[in-house]
Amino acid sequence: MSEIPYKIYLEESEMPTAWYNVRADMKNKPAPLINPGTHQPMGFEELRGVFCDELVRQELNNTDRYIEIPEEIRNFYKMYRPSPLVRAYCLEKALDTPAKIYYKFEGNNTSGSHKLNSAIAQAYYAKAQGLKGVTTETGAGQWGTALSMACAYLGLDCKVYMVKVSYEQKPFRREVMRTYGASVTPSPSDTTNVGRQILADFPGTTGSLGCAISEAVEAATSTEGYRYVLGSVLSQVLLHQSIVGLESKAAMDKYGIKPDLIIGCAGGGSNLGGLISPFMGEMLRGEQEYEFIAVEPASCPSLTRGKFVYDFCDTGNVCPMAKMYTLGSRFIPSPNHAGGLRYHGMSSILSQLYHDGYLKARSVEQTAVFDAATKFARVEGILPAPESSHAIRVAMDEALKCKETGEEKTILFGLTGTGYFDMVAYEQYNNGTMTDYIPTDEELEKSFAQIPEVDA
Amino acid sequence: MSEIPYKIYLEESEMPTAWYNVRADMKNKPAPLINPGTHQPMGFEELRGVFCDELVRQELNNTDRYIEIPEEIRNFYKMYRPSPLVRAYCLEKALDTPAKIYYKFEGNNTSGSHKLNSAIAQAYYAKAQGLKGVTTETGAGQWGTALSMACAYLGLDCKVYMVKVSYEQKPFRREVMRTYGASVTPSPSDTTNVGRQILADFPGTTGSLGCAISEAVEAATSTEGYRYVLGSVLSQVLLHQSIVGLESKAAMDKYGIKPDLIIGCAGGGSNLGGLISPFMGEMLRGEQEYEFIAVEPASCPSLTRGKFVYDFCDTGNVCPMAKMYTLGSRFIPSPNHAGGLRYHGMSSILSQLYHDGYLKARSVEQTAVFDAATKFARVEGILPAPESSHAIRVAMDEALKCKETGEEKTILFGLTGTGYFDMVAYEQYNNGTMTDYIPTDEELEKSFAQIPEVDA
Repeated sequence: MSEIPYKIYLEESEMPTAWYNVRADMKNKPAPLINPGTHQPMGFEELRGVFCDELVRQELNNTDRYIEIPEEIRNFYKMYRPSPLVRAYCLEKALDTPAKIYYKFEGNNTSGSHKLNSAIAQAYYAKAQGLKGVTTETGAGQWGTALSMACAYLGLDCKVYMVKVSYEQKPFRREVMRTYGASVTPSPSDTTNVGRQILADFPGTTGSLGCAISEAVEAATSTEGYRYVLGSVLSQVLLHQSIVGLESKAAMDKYGIKPDLIIGCAGGGSNLGGLISPFMGEMLRGEQEYEFIAVEPASCPSLTRGKFVYDFCDTGNVCPMAKMYTLGSRFIPSPNHAGGLRYHGMSSILSQLYHDGYLKARSVEQTAVFDAATKFARVEGILPAPESSHAIRVAMDEALKCKETGEEKTILFGLTGTGYFDMVAYEQYNNGTMTDYIPTDEELEKSFAQIPEVDA
Repeated sequence: MSEIPYKIYLEESEMPTAWYNVRADMKNKPAPLINPGTHQPMGFEELRGVFCDELVRQELNNTDRYIEIPEEIRNFYKMYRPSPLVRAYCLEKALDTPAKIYYKFEGNNTSGSHKLNSAIAQAYYAKAQGLKGVTTETGAGQWGTALSMACAYLGLDCKVYMVKVSYEQKPFRREVMRTYGASVTPSPSDTTNVGRQILADFPGTTGSLGCAISEAVEAATSTEGYRYVLGSVLSQVLLHQSIVGLESKAAMDKYGIKPDLIIGCAGGGSNLGGLISPFMGEMLRGEQEYEFIAVEPASCPSLTRGKFVYDFCDTGNVCPMAKMYTLGSRFIPSPNHAGGLRYHGMSSILSQLYHDGYLKARSVEQTAVFDAATKFARVEGILPAPESSHAIRVAMDEALKCKETGEEKTILFGLTGTGYFDMVAYEQYNNGTMTDYIPTDEELEKSFAQIPEVDA
């Protein structure tokens, strides 16, 4: 076995040509999406009004283990993939740990995160169907940026509803999207019924992700030739993001490395689900053992403190409902929460795997996350996104445990993106003014009380 | 010959182990630095008060063709190098050109540019000499960020004087530097004599690069255990940046590609000099023919409209003087100028090569540059820095010429960095409010009049 380089890059010829669908290997399949009015499972005909046809097929496909990646998407992937699998030699040295730490770095593209992997896929199928454009929402802006890039590449119109407070506080993200030709509307806006209603009910509101989703869905379903696309949570998104795990696994296999522990941050679950999928598949098929840890913010703890029930995915209750670990669709993290990972629910796939005991979860507080981010930046030279830094925090904690026990564990974590557009949060941390907040049981109970009863 | 992949990555084992010193192959050597008071050439003893010893040796070394890269620097390089050599298939297709376009992308590191290549070298030699820290200036912030990263890695103190207007308008750049542990002082400041003098003479001034250089030099020379470091212009910096050209050449040689035309943006010359060095060496030795184009902003046209004379490198006249193409040390580009490339002078090496006819120069206006940047971003998926986009503009112009003539030229250009911190300029462009400015002959004459007479 040759010496492990700092960065393992696959050759173009070694890149995956099919996505891996973990649902094919799950004994307990994720529960189906249901209609928010009738509570009946939604089939192809009902879903195709919201999503484009091929994506509905992928959303409903619980059986095919591999789904071929169309050539045009593979060519787009070649512009920024394969992403490097990095051996964190410098971090290991700084921690003085016997653990071997690897991370899959998805930040080396202009969207700054893994979101581009699904954005190009969703835009491609919309284009292939002859649609004119797509609509979506964005909070911090990573997903909106990724979708703008994909749409610019394919010549597809892109309408982004951006949570108003982010629109105003993150003008640079907004300008990147505009540079890629997207139209960006602060949400809530007066361009949709649901937006006008929210503005009337809550004058002066700065918006929320759930509200922006409702606007984007209304805009898509009320405009000829448009469909709605979403950057996380959905099973189709985890399918596309499996490219992250497949590349990681191929790179590790090439050097005969087997990870003991795989760690990812989890908001809606797109990164974690993508990273762990092929490894989880081996475990589900009984071929291999791994330990998986989902890391979420203590301020938005859907896995560690949420309920596993059907809930709304948006504020306006226009989206399909999903069975998932949820904090309630009206839950909004405390205003001191920095970065993403602020969604109230979790991917149905990951929720089911967690419920069935295949996946562990841990919540961390944000000052501890930024401690880890800053240490990591200084020794590994990459300024991580706050979201990604949740995984760094736990990877460092686990490596420090190995230092105590002497175990030479091999740890793999997902470094989903860069923090260039998160410097307001870093500034708070640098100035010592960053604070933590953990919701009380009472707050969560209040939020849980708004979850509807569903017999499904 | 195998098919050219989208991105060519060298293996770690193929990475250069020595920098290439183009001065060794120059018949007419660059003129020596001279003392601003006596106008006598400065030797080792005089320069070592400003720069650390090994860097002075490199600055004075006109003879050794290769200088070994110390192992610790090579290990640091492995964290973000080799950088990809990208075949711009998508750009070629969008331009419908028979030209083959390649670019060397230096933006995949947290400093966002090639500057890190010299920052780590300069910090390393300072550390090796047992120094406590280094001082420098930064304008847009790329160099300051790179130096902060290098110093954090080596445990060296880093004091950055940041042009006040940038300090206030680019708080995010400032925070990245602070995250890497640097102290950042807006310049002019009351921490130096030269700063206090400038504040007294020009109350309310927003500072300039030349002024920040003076403050950083004073801070270094008046503090025990500190030296001054500079991110461009100096011959030592071009030496370190030769890694860019060496990797490019190795990657092209691997696939049997020979560029006809090599294009780089030029401010102080660090990127262009580094990119072209090994190719220029072949031409100087009569082994190969290439065409080289330096691209500069029409608003700061040192090569295309400057004088080739000795001039001050800073406002306070405390730095060594250099013989170079210069607009005069008091020249400041029009306030509508976006991005870097705003230095009044040009590397002595490049100035000499230009004077001797080995290098061409072209100036471009910034709206045309942002036209090219936006088109490039949409088809190649990378949001380029304004500086780098100067090279993109000319590469696109040359590829379009090939479309007319049918020539299948192979074009290589340097994509020095990313534009994540330049969204204010992109916003102006997106809003249609960006303007151009070309200094008049009268303005330049006024600036030339301040260049001192030197008999050397």
